[in-house]
Amino acid sequence: MLVSEYDDVIRLEPTDHPDRRQGAFTESWMIGNAVNGGVVMAAGLTALRQHLSTDPQEVAEHIDPVVLSAYFMTASAPGPFTATTELMRAGRRLTTGQVSVWQDVDGEPTERMRAIASFGNLDGADTYRQSTPPDLPPPDECVSAQQAPPDFLRHNHFLDRVDIRLDPATAGWAVGKPSMRGLIQGWLRLRDPREPDTTMLALALDAFPPVAFDLGLYGWTPTLEFTGHIRRRPAPGWLRIAINTENVGGGLMEEDARIWDSAGSLVAQSRQLCGVRPA
Amino acid sequence: MLVSEYDDVIRLEPTDHPDRRQGAFTESWMIGNAVNGGVVMAAGLTALRQHLSTDPQEVAEHIDPVVLSAYFMTASAPGPFTATTELMRAGRRLTTGQVSVWQDVDGEPTERMRAIASFGNLDGADTYRQSTPPDLPPPDECVSAQQAPPDFLRHNHFLDRVDIRLDPATAGWAVGKPSMRGLIQGWLRLRDPREPDTTMLALALDAFPPVAFDLGLYGWTPTLEFTGHIRRRPAPGWLRIAINTENVGGGLMEEDARIWDSAGSLVAQSRQLCGVRPA
Repeated sequence: MLVSEYDDVIRLEPTDHPDRRQGAFTESWMIGNAVNGGVVMAAGLTALRQHLSTDPQEVAEHIDPVVLSAYFMTASAPGPFTATTELMRAGRRLTTGQVSVWQDVDGEPTERMRAIASFGNLDGADTYRQSTPPDLPPPDECVSAQQAPPDFLRHNHFLDRVDIRLDPATAGWAVGKPSMRGLIQGWLRLRDPREPDTTMLALALDAFPPVAFDLGLYGWTPTLEFTGHIRRRPAPGWLRIAINTENVGGGLMEEDARIWDSAGSLVAQSRQLCGVRPA
Repeated sequence: MLVSEYDDVIRLEPTDHPDRRQGAFTESWMIGNAVNGGVVMAAGLTALRQHLSTDPQEVAEHIDPVVLSAYFMTASAPGPFTATTELMRAGRRLTTGQVSVWQDVDGEPTERMRAIASFGNLDGADTYRQSTPPDLPPPDECVSAQQAPPDFLRHNHFLDRVDIRLDPATAGWAVGKPSMRGLIQGWLRLRDPREPDTTMLALALDAFPPVAFDLGLYGWTPTLEFTGHIRRRPAPGWLRIAINTENVGGGLMEEDARIWDSAGSLVAQSRQLCGVRPA
């Protein structure tokens, strides 16, 4: 059976407790010194959906994450993790619950991320009005993350798992020429032969390089809080992504992301609050 | 002692449990058939801050809410409520915790809202880059909510507590002429002699009429999830607010809000996911 590395990292094993599942992060998903936050969210969402679907109150069709708010407390490391989950409310349109991802640190259970999320059904969701997708050169005319220096890629295995192609007009920061607009645009797909779904969009919303780079802020911008809205099931193919920021100060900034699918439909958007640390 | 109605509704009484506080919502804060969600968030934040400040790990200066994500499960009613709180992580820059607001319904404790929030210290926060505040006519040349029909005001006591002045260019929807841009702008202050602070901004972010009205969608748009970022302590005086939406479909829409203080600084922004129900 062909299993994609993405499906592998979000695969969970049941335990004796209906509200507890186990999985493992691998080095393949590391970005810098941590497991990519989007992967932690996708795994947490998967655990929560599995739990909610076992609840007798649950509407069985609530299989799509519609909104999630995640707080990152400590950086996730490669190795086993436990996801603990709770049903908060089973409604007709949405089912809402909470999930925490834990890892052992020196034998102590340590909370990595806690999220609240609501699930619904996005099958056939109509579009009354939506943000206009950006004009982008085709993926083959964009800048691949694979063109980054080998030393950089060695510490960012995540970029072997996700194929990111940046619009050259918003990639000048990579050669020390940020546009100072606070904007990065481009394409994304998994390198696995695996089409996007609504859970994978949570990963995609947090997969681009930090938008701070385009302001010449090359330091660490850790995600403190992340909220994503998933609005449609994505069509197969490349995702078109734009991230931007408007407000930087007090050691904090927001990063907004929007994703359109290959059919041009807005499928997800997010806002995160990041810390801004000097390089 | 002069106590403002706002301070009154967020006042909490301790209980025998350090993680449980009691308060009461009053009819003064109702909008339609529910207590305004912003008031529920401000009360919840106050309870959480009080709890966190009693923890020995807590950094005492973390008195400003910096980010909160709230999920609304059931509509709050006038009457007593209980806020239960939990410390999640005490860090050097931020302290993070969780709060739930409960009310008894037919003798059953019922969760109204659950939020995760981080507190820090925004004293002297600098601004490196910010969204440009909108040009607005002065408050006296704007449309007051008090000009709404008396029958409407009778069911929305909230509008007696909060002084909202809408830019006439974005208030056409009130006379059946929505601009169809998905934009409402104007001014806000409490009617109490009470200047804004960082907790009150959570209320202000959710106080304007639904932006859906400016798209001619006059139905109910209940907040499902609300995330606010508080970025600076507001200067005294009127707050300048702009709300907008870009993505409507599948029975859902986002509503973004931004607030600038009287000095023109961006002090807070939010995004919420709302349901869109036919009128």
